[in-house]
Amino acid sequence: MKVKEGDRVLLLVKGKEYLVEVSDRSFGTNQGMFELKDAISKEYGSYIVSSTGVRGYLLRPTLYDLMMKIKRQTQIVYPKDAGYILLRLGIGPGMRVLECGCGSGSLTMAFAFAVGDTGKVYSYDERDEFITLAKENLARARLHHRVEFKCRRAQDGFDEKDVNAVFLDLPEPWVAIQSAWQSLAGGGVLGTLSPTYNQIERTVETLMQGGFEIIETVEILVREILARPGKTRPRERMVSHTAFLMFARKVNE
Amino acid sequence: MKVKEGDRVLLLVKGKEYLVEVSDRSFGTNQGMFELKDAISKEYGSYIVSSTGVRGYLLRPTLYDLMMKIKRQTQIVYPKDAGYILLRLGIGPGMRVLECGCGSGSLTMAFAFAVGDTGKVYSYDERDEFITLAKENLARARLHHRVEFKCRRAQDGFDEKDVNAVFLDLPEPWVAIQSAWQSLAGGGVLGTLSPTYNQIERTVETLMQGGFEIIETVEILVREILARPGKTRPRERMVSHTAFLMFARKVNE
Amino acid sequence: MKVKEGDRVLLLVKGKEYLVEVSDRSFGTNQGMFELKDAISKEYGSYIVSSTGVRGYLLRPTLYDLMMKIKRQTQIVYPKDAGYILLRLGIGPGMRVLECGCGSGSLTMAFAFAVGDTGKVYSYDERDEFITLAKENLARARLHHRVEFKCRRAQDGFDEKDVNAVFLDLPEPWVAIQSAWQSLAGGGVLGTLSPTYNQIERTVETLMQGGFEIIETVEILVREILARPGKTRPRERMVSHTAFLMFARKVNE
Amino acid sequence: MKVKEGDRVLLLVKGKEYLVEVSDRSFGTNQGMFELKDAISKEYGSYIVSSTGVRGYLLRPTLYDLMMKIKRQTQIVYPKDAGYILLRLGIGPGMRVLECGCGSGSLTMAFAFAVGDTGKVYSYDERDEFITLAKENLARARLHHRVEFKCRRAQDGFDEKDVNAVFLDLPEPWVAIQSAWQSLAGGGVLGTLSPTYNQIERTVETLMQGGFEIIETVEILVREILARPGKTRPRERMVSHTAFLMFARKVNE
Repeated sequence: MKVKEGDRVLLLVKGKEYLVEVSDRSFGTNQGMFELKDAISKEYGSYIVSSTGVRGYLLRPTLYDLMMKIKRQTQIVYPKDAGYILLRLGIGPGMRVLECGCGSGSLTMAFAFAVGDTGKVYSYDERDEFITLAKENLARARLHHRVEFKCRRAQDGFDEKDVNAVFLDLPEPWVAIQSAWQSLAGGGVLGTLSPTYNQIERTVETLMQGGFEIIETVEILVREILARPGKTRPRERMVSHTAFLMFARKVNE
Repeated sequence: MKVKEGDRVLLLVKGKEYLVEVSDRSFGTNQGMFELKDAISKEYGSYIVSSTGVRGYLLRPTLYDLMMKIKRQTQIVYPKDAGYILLRLGIGPGMRVLECGCGSGSLTMAFAFAVGDTGKVYSYDERDEFITLAKENLARARLHHRVEFKCRRAQDGFDEKDVNAVFLDLPEPWVAIQSAWQSLAGGGVLGTLSPTYNQIERTVETLMQGGFEIIETVEILVREILARPGKTRPRERMVSHTAFLMFARKVNE
Repeated sequence: MKVKEGDRVLLLVKGKEYLVEVSDRSFGTNQGMFELKDAISKEYGSYIVSSTGVRGYLLRPTLYDLMMKIKRQTQIVYPKDAGYILLRLGIGPGMRVLECGCGSGSLTMAFAFAVGDTGKVYSYDERDEFITLAKENLARARLHHRVEFKCRRAQDGFDEKDVNAVFLDLPEPWVAIQSAWQSLAGGGVLGTLSPTYNQIERTVETLMQGGFEIIETVEILVREILARPGKTRPRERMVSHTAFLMFARKVNE
Repeated sequence: MKVKEGDRVLLLVKGKEYLVEVSDRSFGTNQGMFELKDAISKEYGSYIVSSTGVRGYLLRPTLYDLMMKIKRQTQIVYPKDAGYILLRLGIGPGMRVLECGCGSGSLTMAFAFAVGDTGKVYSYDERDEFITLAKENLARARLHHRVEFKCRRAQDGFDEKDVNAVFLDLPEPWVAIQSAWQSLAGGGVLGTLSPTYNQIERTVETLMQGGFEIIETVEILVREILARPGKTRPRERMVSHTAFLMFARKVNE
C-alpha cells in the first residue's frame, strides 16, 4: 500500500515518532528537515531521507498511535484503559455506543474506530470547547463521520434508546446513571472512569440501588519491560494510576 | 431486543454466570432448575425464574463473556491482554490479521469479533487438536465464518501477503519472525506473547537483526477493587502474571 | 553453632519448612518420621534423617520465619509490611515503641526483635484473648521479656511518655490519635495500618487537624519471581492487598 | 529530648526536608534564612523561625531519613528494599553481617543501625572511592564505629567466619557465592540484589549447584497513596523497578 497526498503518516526518525500530514511542505526535526512530498507514492514501511541523511520511516498510524498523538486539553483516556474498556463493553463493528464526557476525544476515537462504518457513537459533553476539540481530533483521524456530538449535561438525559453500551467519564458519574439506564438496551453494559476512590464508592452506591448487576471495578497497570540481550529488566518508572474503571450490566427489575 | 431460540445467553443467577444455548431443555444450577424455553421472546435484560423461585437474568454475552467462558485445553489469552493487543495491533473492521498459535482460540475470537464481516483472520497452528477446539469455540460464538484455520508449522511460512498485523503465540516466536515479516504489509504491526524473560530476550534479539522498528515490551496487570460503601479496598489476591507482550513495526531496510 | 535441647529449629524437608522445638519426641512429616533428639549437638545448617531416609536440614529461624509461622487468630502483619514499618518508624536497638492492637502479635514480634534487650515494647489491646495469644507467640520466639502487654481501649490513653514511635493497628485508628500524640516524643513517628480507603481517609482527616506533619500513605507489594535456568518469570498469583500504611511525625504547634 | 550543638537534625520547612548539622551558621531555604544555633536547647518536635517568618520544625532523623538523604555516587538501596532485606536476613541487635559492594553505603547504614553497638558489619568493596564515600556517610549518621570496611574483590574471599548473614550487591554476584558460603554460619542467610533478570538467572544457577536451600526471589513495589478528604487516589507515577532481591540459606551437604 502506497502513501498518498493528504495521508496522515507516522514518521519514525531515530526512535522518535511524528504524526504528519503528507503535503507539499517541509517538516523539521532534530535530525534535519524532511520534504514530506517525497513520501508520495512510497510504500508504507519504506523511508524518506532528511536533509542530514537520516531515515524517516513511513508508517500507517494505528489506533494506538492516533490516541497517543491526540491534541489534548484534558487528561486523555490511555490505551491501556481504552483497550480494556472496548473489550468489557463488547464494542465491535455495527454497535451503537453512547459516551458522556468526551474530553479531548481519545476514547471517542477508540469507539469510532471499533464500531466501523456500520456503527455509531453518540458523544455528549456539557462543555462546548471539548466538543470542538474532540471533533477536530476525530476529523484528523478520519473518524468523525461515525460520531454525533451533542452539548448537554448528563442529568438532562440522552436522546438515544437501546444502545449497546454507555460510557461515563464524568466528575460525578452518579448523576448520569438514571439517564444511562434509560438509554441502554436490556442487558447492555455501563462503564465509568473515575480517578478517586470516593467517586467509585459513590457510583457503586448508586448502582446498587437497582437496575444493574455484575458490578465490577478494576484498575489496569502497564509495566514496560526493557528487553535487551543480556540485561533485561522492567523500566524504572511507570504510570501508576490513571483511573478506576467500573462496569455493570443493565437489568429490568 | 428479544431472546430467540438458538441464542447463546449469559444466564446470571445470584452473581454466578452461565453461558447457555436457548432450547427446549432444563438447566440445573445450585439455585434450582431453569426451563430455558421460558427465555424465548423475553427481552434481554429481563429474567426467568428457577424451580426454587430464584431469578436468572438473560444477558447477551459480550466478547469479554465469550472469552472467559471458552472451552479450554490450553492457557487462554486473558481479556486484559487481548484488549491491549487489539489496540496495539490496531485491529478494527475490515482488517486482515494473521495469528500463529491459536491454542483454544480465545484471541482468535477477539480478532474475529473486531474485524467484522468485512475483515478476515488467518489462524495457523501446528497441532490439529487445537484447531479443532478453536473452531468449535469460534462456532459457538458465531464468529467462525470470519476465520480461516490452517494446520502448519510457523517456520514453513504463511500463505497470506500484506496483512495488517501478525500475532505469534508460540513457545519459540523467533522461528516465525521471518515468515511474519514476509506476510506483513509495510509498516504492519507484529505482536508476540511469551510467559518468560528468556523468550522475550531471544525474540528481541531476532527482531533487532533487522526489518523491525519501535520494538516495545509490556506486561498488563489488572487489579480488582472491591468498591463497597464504607469499606472500599483492593481485592486481596490477583493474577500477577500471564505473559509479556512484545510489539514491533515492519520496515523495509 | 550447635543445636541445643529446647531450641526452636526450622526443619527444612524437601522444600517444606516446619518450626519445631528440639526435645525427646518424634515429628511426623509426609517424608517420614524425624527423631528430634537426633538434632542435639548437630551444627546448624546440617541435617538429620527421617525414617524414610529423607534429609531434614536444621536452620535457626530468622525473624521472617518466626513471623510466618506464628499461631494466628487474626490477619497477621506480613513481613513485606513489617520490614517497611520498622524502617519508617526508625526502630532499632534501645528504642521504646508503643503499639495498639497487637492481634496475634506478629508485628509485636518484629518490634521486640529490633529493639533488643536495651529497648522496650508496650503493647495494648482491648481484647484479652489477643493479648494471651500474642504473649504465647512472643514467648515461643523468646522475645516476651522485651514486651509489656496491657489490656485497654485506645481512647482511654496510654501510660508511657516520650516513646520513639507509636503504631496503631485498629479498626478506627482515629480514636487513638490523641493518645498517640501524648505518648510520642517530640518529632516521634506515628504509624497506622488499615485495609480500606475509608479508614485512611478518616485517619488523615484527623491527623490534618494538627499536631502532625509529613503525613504519607503507601502500600507495599511483593512480587515473587520464579528464577530458573531458561524459564524465568514472575509467579502467576500474588497477594495484591493487605493494608495501607500511613506515617506521620509529631510536632508541637 | 532537646537539640544539642552538633546534632544532625531534619529541618522541615513547608513540606520540604533538609538534613542539617546544628552549629553557629545560617541555612538558606526558599522560605528564608534559618539561624541553626536557634535550635540549640529546643525540644525535638518544636520549631525555629526563618528570616521571613516561616517555621522550620526540628525532627530527629530516622533511619529512613538518613538513607534518603545520603550523599550518593551510585544507585542507592531504597528503603522499600532495605526494610525487606533486614527482615529476610533476620538482622537485629548483636548480629554480625557481611556485605560486599557497599556503594554509597545506604544499605551499610541500615545494617549498622540494626545490629546496634553489640553487633558488627563487615563491608567489602573493590573500589576505594566507594569505601571513602560510604565511610563518610556512615560517619555523618554516627554509625561508622559499627562497620569495618575492607577494599577487596569478592572472589578473593572474606576474612570473617560464622557471620549471621551475607549480602551481595555486585554486578556479578555469582563470583562471590563461594566466598559467601565459607563466611556464613550454618543455616545463615545469603541475600543478593540485582537489577536484571539475566543476573538473577545466573545467580540462581550458581546457588542450585549446591550448598544453599530455600532459594527465593522477589521484587518490592511501593505505591504511594494520596489520602485526602474526598479525593483519595494512588499517586500517578511511581518507581516501578529498582532491583530483584534473592535470598537463600546455607546448608552443609
